[in-house]
Amino acid sequence: MAGNSFGQVFKITTFGESHGAAIGVIIDGCPPNIPLDLEFIQLELDKRKPGQSKITTQRKESDSCQILSGIFEGKSTGTPIAIIIPNEDQKSKDYDHNKDIFRPSHADFTYQAKYGIRDHRGGGRSSARETAARVAAGAIAKLFLNQYGIEVLAHVSSVGKLNASEVNISSAQDFIEKRESNLVRCADIAIADEMIELIDSVRKDGDTIGGKITCTIKNCPVGLGEPVFDKLHADLGKAMLSINAVHGFDYGSGFEGSEMRGSQHNDTFFTDEKRIVKTTSNYAGGILGGISSGMDINFRVAFKPVATIMTTQETVNVAGEASEIKGKGRHDPCVVPRAVAIVEAMAALVIADHLLRNNMYQTLK
Amino acid sequence: MAGNSFGQVFKITTFGESHGAAIGVIIDGCPPNIPLDLEFIQLELDKRKPGQSKITTQRKESDSCQILSGIFEGKSTGTPIAIIIPNEDQKSKDYDHNKDIFRPSHADFTYQAKYGIRDHRGGGRSSARETAARVAAGAIAKLFLNQYGIEVLAHVSSVGKLNASEVNISSAQDFIEKRESNLVRCADIAIADEMIELIDSVRKDGDTIGGKITCTIKNCPVGLGEPVFDKLHADLGKAMLSINAVHGFDYGSGFEGSEMRGSQHNDTFFTDEKRIVKTTSNYAGGILGGISSGMDINFRVAFKPVATIMTTQETVNVAGEASEIKGKGRHDPCVVPRAVAIVEAMAALVIADHLLRNNMYQTLK
Amino acid sequence: MAGNSFGQVFKITTFGESHGAAIGVIIDGCPPNIPLDLEFIQLELDKRKPGQSKITTQRKESDSCQILSGIFEGKSTGTPIAIIIPNEDQKSKDYDHNKDIFRPSHADFTYQAKYGIRDHRGGGRSSARETAARVAAGAIAKLFLNQYGIEVLAHVSSVGKLNASEVNISSAQDFIEKRESNLVRCADIAIADEMIELIDSVRKDGDTIGGKITCTIKNCPVGLGEPVFDKLHADLGKAMLSINAVHGFDYGSGFEGSEMRGSQHNDTFFTDEKRIVKTTSNYAGGILGGISSGMDINFRVAFKPVATIMTTQETVNVAGEASEIKGKGRHDPCVVPRAVAIVEAMAALVIADHLLRNNMYQTLK
Amino acid sequence: MAGNSFGQVFKITTFGESHGAAIGVIIDGCPPNIPLDLEFIQLELDKRKPGQSKITTQRKESDSCQILSGIFEGKSTGTPIAIIIPNEDQKSKDYDHNKDIFRPSHADFTYQAKYGIRDHRGGGRSSARETAARVAAGAIAKLFLNQYGIEVLAHVSSVGKLNASEVNISSAQDFIEKRESNLVRCADIAIADEMIELIDSVRKDGDTIGGKITCTIKNCPVGLGEPVFDKLHADLGKAMLSINAVHGFDYGSGFEGSEMRGSQHNDTFFTDEKRIVKTTSNYAGGILGGISSGMDINFRVAFKPVATIMTTQETVNVAGEASEIKGKGRHDPCVVPRAVAIVEAMAALVIADHLLRNNMYQTLK
Repeated sequence: MAGNSFGQVFKITTFGESHGAAIGVIIDGCPPNIPLDLEFIQLELDKRKPGQSKITTQRKESDSCQILSGIFEGKSTGTPIAIIIPNEDQKSKDYDHNKDIFRPSHADFTYQAKYGIRDHRGGGRSSARETAARVAAGAIAKLFLNQYGIEVLAHVSSVGKLNASEVNISSAQDFIEKRESNLVRCADIAIADEMIELIDSVRKDGDTIGGKITCTIKNCPVGLGEPVFDKLHADLGKAMLSINAVHGFDYGSGFEGSEMRGSQHNDTFFTDEKRIVKTTSNYAGGILGGISSGMDINFRVAFKPVATIMTTQETVNVAGEASEIKGKGRHDPCVVPRAVAIVEAMAALVIADHLLRNNMYQTLK
Repeated sequence: MAGNSFGQVFKITTFGESHGAAIGVIIDGCPPNIPLDLEFIQLELDKRKPGQSKITTQRKESDSCQILSGIFEGKSTGTPIAIIIPNEDQKSKDYDHNKDIFRPSHADFTYQAKYGIRDHRGGGRSSARETAARVAAGAIAKLFLNQYGIEVLAHVSSVGKLNASEVNISSAQDFIEKRESNLVRCADIAIADEMIELIDSVRKDGDTIGGKITCTIKNCPVGLGEPVFDKLHADLGKAMLSINAVHGFDYGSGFEGSEMRGSQHNDTFFTDEKRIVKTTSNYAGGILGGISSGMDINFRVAFKPVATIMTTQETVNVAGEASEIKGKGRHDPCVVPRAVAIVEAMAALVIADHLLRNNMYQTLK
Repeated sequence: MAGNSFGQVFKITTFGESHGAAIGVIIDGCPPNIPLDLEFIQLELDKRKPGQSKITTQRKESDSCQILSGIFEGKSTGTPIAIIIPNEDQKSKDYDHNKDIFRPSHADFTYQAKYGIRDHRGGGRSSARETAARVAAGAIAKLFLNQYGIEVLAHVSSVGKLNASEVNISSAQDFIEKRESNLVRCADIAIADEMIELIDSVRKDGDTIGGKITCTIKNCPVGLGEPVFDKLHADLGKAMLSINAVHGFDYGSGFEGSEMRGSQHNDTFFTDEKRIVKTTSNYAGGILGGISSGMDINFRVAFKPVATIMTTQETVNVAGEASEIKGKGRHDPCVVPRAVAIVEAMAALVIADHLLRNNMYQTLK
Repeated sequence: MAGNSFGQVFKITTFGESHGAAIGVIIDGCPPNIPLDLEFIQLELDKRKPGQSKITTQRKESDSCQILSGIFEGKSTGTPIAIIIPNEDQKSKDYDHNKDIFRPSHADFTYQAKYGIRDHRGGGRSSARETAARVAAGAIAKLFLNQYGIEVLAHVSSVGKLNASEVNISSAQDFIEKRESNLVRCADIAIADEMIELIDSVRKDGDTIGGKITCTIKNCPVGLGEPVFDKLHADLGKAMLSINAVHGFDYGSGFEGSEMRGSQHNDTFFTDEKRIVKTTSNYAGGILGGISSGMDINFRVAFKPVATIMTTQETVNVAGEASEIKGKGRHDPCVVPRAVAIVEAMAALVIADHLLRNNMYQTLK
């Protein structure tokens, strides 16, 4: 009820504050006999970790994870998988000035009001550090989805007003290579440098900037998603909106679809040479009535600019008195390059959960 | 697991197909001693019901509801409230042609694939008729929220490319009066007629068109929303995305916020004359770190155009063979005027649920 | 949260007061394509209905049920199945004297204290009438279990101090025939008449008496039950303890097992002629580590005597003042003959739920 | 879904195998501002830990726990509390002989059948070692209940056929002193020595023996428990039945109540000098209609004898072939002395959960 769990069957519960002993996650419901490739999990974490390039925060954390349970001779056993990631390089002193003051557009004020107590060091539980636990869990979801050939592929599709062109994904490998070829993680290489320059210039101003991530899920089988409330896109939407700094989600035709006519928007069914039912267009974003149709699933996630900026801002302190604050510490000028791993992780968790949920009924169809 | 329930504490489960005996809802977790004003519930249903104006479907259904349980001498008792809405004016014959064919951009194909069986009459469970049950439940949530002075206020903010101006809500009454003064339910009266004309012209073409609804929640107390996954906006997003035809959701600065800089986007705290902490701007949309801040909560919901159009479309039949289909029956040219009641209902359900969830901890703050 | 739902996947939510318009249930998660035999559902309800014999309450209710949704051409569709049972023969006047007084060993006092309001007519929501909804849902669970050959077989194993001998179940049909051959529903025919006489004599005293029900589940596949908290017997125990008047549950060796030594209690494994692993004894009650072993599952349920007696008792009224009360109306002298149907229904619901839960993992074993 | 979580609001998820790196628990939903007394938590763990006396297993584990999150300056913050207990003194070699064989009355066979893989070392996840995590979580629940003066008090009420007399609890302190004055943890000092001798003699035989634990909850407020399925005793029953080796649960009059008449069994209400409604007897066990009445809550839990015995037993191996096994390692001859802490922990968790659930509605009563 306190909201630290996600998923119904492939279910995760995360814990940990940014400046506590460790953060971590328990995965309950991972099927048995999935090979748990520790190297792969670490590689996923590395994509999210701080300090990886000049356009991310310069905080250095190795984010190395340890699996405490649920694994036997390299495979999942069907019992809970607990993963912990010890906290390092905490400069808690950097946050002493936050003790008695509410940072603008942070959660300091609302946590204090809700709980009457808060761990003010580095945002405590509201810190985006929590998302490292999601990435570790998402990596295990991906290893499960691998068994079915399902690929979850995200990249940065905009920074500020710089928009990438639509990327045609010929193969997962090609897409990932392109994306990882540049610091901003945009698969449209033509615009990546411009994005990097923009972030760098924003950083030099002591400012921050927002951006968008686009995600495609390939090879998702037909039938995932439960009517009425647990539509596949509703669960994807909740998953994305639960990520720090996300302010918007749309899928398929999305917000633009609201400007279209039915005659334009409807996707025409046809049967391909392998006798598989497909559609000529995909305004539906791979989901019909909340259930995956077999076409590519695609959606977009909008991130606001990071709230910590290096200029002086007016605010109030815990006594409600007018006060001033200036960002200290080491922060990201733009969150999207590191958030690609988080978006993929959350999407993988949703698909893994719905894959298992759908499994239950298949014996009697 | 099968996805027909919503909410954790103030929890609803809906049932019913468009052409079955009845649809309905059970509300489990409604607090005791709430006056259940049946007239109000019916008025809310009337805003959603078909046949209410020339720009909605001409299907006539009274959508009159009956409360079967959970009420005693006009008040809730804390036990489950069951509401049924009998189905009427079903022209099931209108749907005979759907039996063996998949309507483009409908859920026929995915339901058949998932379950191996479907009630093809009028979309069955995937019909938007299911949302009448949500509106009835949402009306009870509103009656609960009334005890706290919380107001949930939505209106049509765009039809196709026609956008309303931002509406300054001086009072709930004034807002509702303006909105209900026109058939399209837009509180910006200046553009309402244009919207109506557009819908009417689209209807004459046998076509449909999308639109957007904007919703504001006023007087929401500080503290609603649970970290990490059950952030208030994540639950609002899931609620909205679970409504038929919704393709997008954003809140506060939303998608536009992704183009902004932190120095623009941050909301400055101040203390007002009543010693209440507020912010000068509200790009946060009334939610900080997933928890309500006491500022107005606002969000937008994008609806795709209705899939049933009156022109001939190519598709496949259940055998996968190329086929043609032409919309029959009585359908909406644009869903947003009737969907205003649904958006408000789902928002009220989310707030009611989080109000109770937050209550649990307040004794020990 | 408010506790009117049961099950995780094959999930029911019941509603309704004894003297409201109707009671009922929604089943969410019933797999598609199960033949829904309405006659069978009614027969199950008839076993629980009041007025069926001289040793049950003389209240007459037909308890005829109606399915409102989730059925198409005689089969389940995978969507929620809503069933209502209208209330009849309510003599609410019989309960006027309960308005301001707390009946001893009833829930009047605790409901009033918890909710500050209660429907005093016939116990409202706390009435055992609620269990009719469970029996209807349980009948559908049985129809599902039929597909797997699983049988749930309960009977009255004691009334007061009269204990039936252990019954060897040669076949489900034989067991049911024996049980239904007498009014008390005891499959040990040798003692049934004595039990009936005892109940009849207690009834003539204006008194009531307790009893026990023993249940066996045959042909349950290996693997049902989830560690650690959702052990199969833990869920069976909760299911039984949630039935009105139940004060105890044990399985396998049960309470007697606590007096035994390990060397007596351990069940020896062997492999039978069909290469199936079995045990020579079954003190484990068909469940090892919370997971079904393939042996018969068996458990016992203890019911206290019905609280409504026809003699004058001291109590307090709602103002806390000393008062007197004498049972009116038509009540059961002993609840177990009618409760056999309820025990079977709840057991069937638990097994159906765990069968589906176990299904999820089977693809990857 | 996979069953490693317990509770709705004060919710725990446990993880860990007996021979993995660590076991542990996450508590989600603990209210903020509860003083987390680490010494108290450790003392509770010490009551459960192995090696504490001659009548328990001689395995030595310090069972020292570490809190990783959810604590700030000695108090809970309302965020998830993660606790880990590293595994020590694992003699995994002791279990090599279990790899290919199914121990009688253990979960080896059912885990293998369900998952197709198992951690055979020491029972893996099915080991009672998992209950240490419950005791740690239960200690925090007790610290929460302390704020309300609620006491959870269990002791060993039988070993084999040796039954303690009913203990009149004058004060929690007195009860605990008596119980802790002897190795078997029986508050009826008169019989404790006999129990200890019995266990010791059974141990010398290489055998094991069952027993019962009786638990009383004092000062529980009126109103805890949710109708219909989440009755307080149903949740207590599930909690107890989820503990390893438990085969039975009853409360109040329990199984004996099934032999009584209503005229004996009904508890008479009266109002005491403080204007509090009480009952003269307490056959109801402090719970009416599933809701706490304010009287003492009491229940009994039956434990089967430990399955690991030091004599040779027949069984089958993983290939289904007849085989023999003899217990090795260090095991408990009787589980109840150590299980007192587990019963109290699970009871405290149930009460904490229902206290918070009941809180939600109290604003509107």
